[in-house]
Amino acid sequence: MLLDTAVTAPHDRLAQWLADDMASVNALIRERMASENAPRIPEVTAHLIEAGGKRLRPLLTVASARLCGYEGTAHHALAAAVEFIHTATLLHDDVVDESRQRRGRPTANLLWDNKSSVLVGDYLFARSFQLMVESGSLQVLGILSNASATITEGEVLQLTAAQNLATTEATYMKVVRGKTAALFAAASEAGAVIAGVSDRQVAALRDYGDALGICFQIVDDYLDYAGLGSAMGKNTGDDFRERKLTLPVIRAIAAADSEERAFWERVIARGRQEPGDLERAMDILGRRGTLESTRATALDWSSRARAALADLPEHPLRDMLADLSDYVVARVS
Amino acid sequence: MLLDTAVTAPHDRLAQWLADDMASVNALIRERMASENAPRIPEVTAHLIEAGGKRLRPLLTVASARLCGYEGTAHHALAAAVEFIHTATLLHDDVVDESRQRRGRPTANLLWDNKSSVLVGDYLFARSFQLMVESGSLQVLGILSNASATITEGEVLQLTAAQNLATTEATYMKVVRGKTAALFAAASEAGAVIAGVSDRQVAALRDYGDALGICFQIVDDYLDYAGLGSAMGKNTGDDFRERKLTLPVIRAIAAADSEERAFWERVIARGRQEPGDLERAMDILGRRGTLESTRATALDWSSRARAALADLPEHPLRDMLADLSDYVVARVS
Repeated sequence: MLLDTAVTAPHDRLAQWLADDMASVNALIRERMASENAPRIPEVTAHLIEAGGKRLRPLLTVASARLCGYEGTAHHALAAAVEFIHTATLLHDDVVDESRQRRGRPTANLLWDNKSSVLVGDYLFARSFQLMVESGSLQVLGILSNASATITEGEVLQLTAAQNLATTEATYMKVVRGKTAALFAAASEAGAVIAGVSDRQVAALRDYGDALGICFQIVDDYLDYAGLGSAMGKNTGDDFRERKLTLPVIRAIAAADSEERAFWERVIARGRQEPGDLERAMDILGRRGTLESTRATALDWSSRARAALADLPEHPLRDMLADLSDYVVARVS
Repeated sequence: MLLDTAVTAPHDRLAQWLADDMASVNALIRERMASENAPRIPEVTAHLIEAGGKRLRPLLTVASARLCGYEGTAHHALAAAVEFIHTATLLHDDVVDESRQRRGRPTANLLWDNKSSVLVGDYLFARSFQLMVESGSLQVLGILSNASATITEGEVLQLTAAQNLATTEATYMKVVRGKTAALFAAASEAGAVIAGVSDRQVAALRDYGDALGICFQIVDDYLDYAGLGSAMGKNTGDDFRERKLTLPVIRAIAAADSEERAFWERVIARGRQEPGDLERAMDILGRRGTLESTRATALDWSSRARAALADLPEHPLRDMLADLSDYVVARVS
């Protein structure tokens, strides 16, 4: 057997199991990212969409729908809508963060300009709502429009919390729920809703997506300091240079002595970073044990994701989703 | 009588006639622009929303619904949604155009930053879809999500057509339909749809909004050269300095001799503008008669807006909408 489940990543196994569904989703994405009137739009979108993201969020929608016994095709439009919301968010994020690289390639704002990134993001957002309307479910429209509002609130909160040493873990969790978990949760929930299962099973898949998204983001923030970030196309130390208050740093600041406090004050709050500061920051995170405790928090959310699946029927897709929650933390194990 | 209909502008008469409805719409706008999690959001939104725009688009939605005999309250959510889409568009436009003034005040991108304008625009867009979901009409959601896509296509098309002397009147009309008329048309149509009137009456109000929006934009582009722009908070000559291909210029380029062609080439395509160039441009527009023909085109669209109302029942609101189409061109009469 060519595909050994022990060595194939769970999202690849999900993609194989759901290959026909995902082919339909991808065809829909290509069809709807076109614009007869403004050829610039598909150029910019293709740059990002064809760059080979894992399509994790649409996979969640399709997997949830099929796990809940759905036999129709409306989940394709929802999965494409979810990917468009995600892509729109990336385009706008790269403008907001002034990023230069995404998925190992130059960002759209660098290749074209900020204007194109803003407008093409808006276009994809509008297209995502058109797709949702086609699904015919007002309930799903409610879920995904709520998620869209929460995503943006998370981004704005991150913007205003940046460089602020008083940022708490509670604020961090609000940012994480907004910028990452809201769409994971909505993507999973939407699949269950379109399948028409019980409120309890809908809640189970929403909770699964929420925990998976939180886990995913905490791992990301951990790896930005723990030095294994290259696997994600991110460079170690980006968050430090951008003075973001992520979990390892928030916890280190909470535990800081006066000398460490002065250090964080200088490098994060005032942004006066010097050569050797990143190494010193990592040394402090190591001594204060906050990298280790961040890793433990990620593992806890991974367990919560797996536990949320208990209310769902036995199904190969349920096992793959459970494995996915392990896989996300395997990067930090 | 204090309010003389002969001297009160039609949008003020509409606002008076629909005062209770508009009070509900404004309350909803204030309620929904809040964000518990990100206080920056209402700050930015309030700056723009409280700046005293005329609420023309939500007025169209409310007027259409009432004119069509609607007795419910779902039109309030739709009118607020329309205003949020409009406000989101303004926030993103000011980033794209690098504008410094809007409605006589500094723009949000200048007072805060581009990041806040991008994200708060996204938030309002998401909030608008939440409001539409509450209206419970998938048909209206379809109309307004289509309009949102068309608006963005128009903006992108304008971006890629800027500084391009080969821009045709057909392209100009696509831009105008996108950036202005799409939301006027959708705002009017949505009110008719929620009232449940015949397809013919729905089409009549959509056509009215479309023609009114086109007229509105052509008048705006005319005034940018014709020197009366201060009434709109715009400065004469902005479009010239930004090298936008608007109707008077497109027509002047089409009629240009070789000397004029070289002039447009230099000031618009290459952007090498010198003192006295705006005056020379206005002299050419005058001699070629394109300001006058642009004015005639605006008057034609005003007539089409009025004519579209013929399929609707006799009603004071119908008369006010007809007067509104005259009022828009009164600025150029």
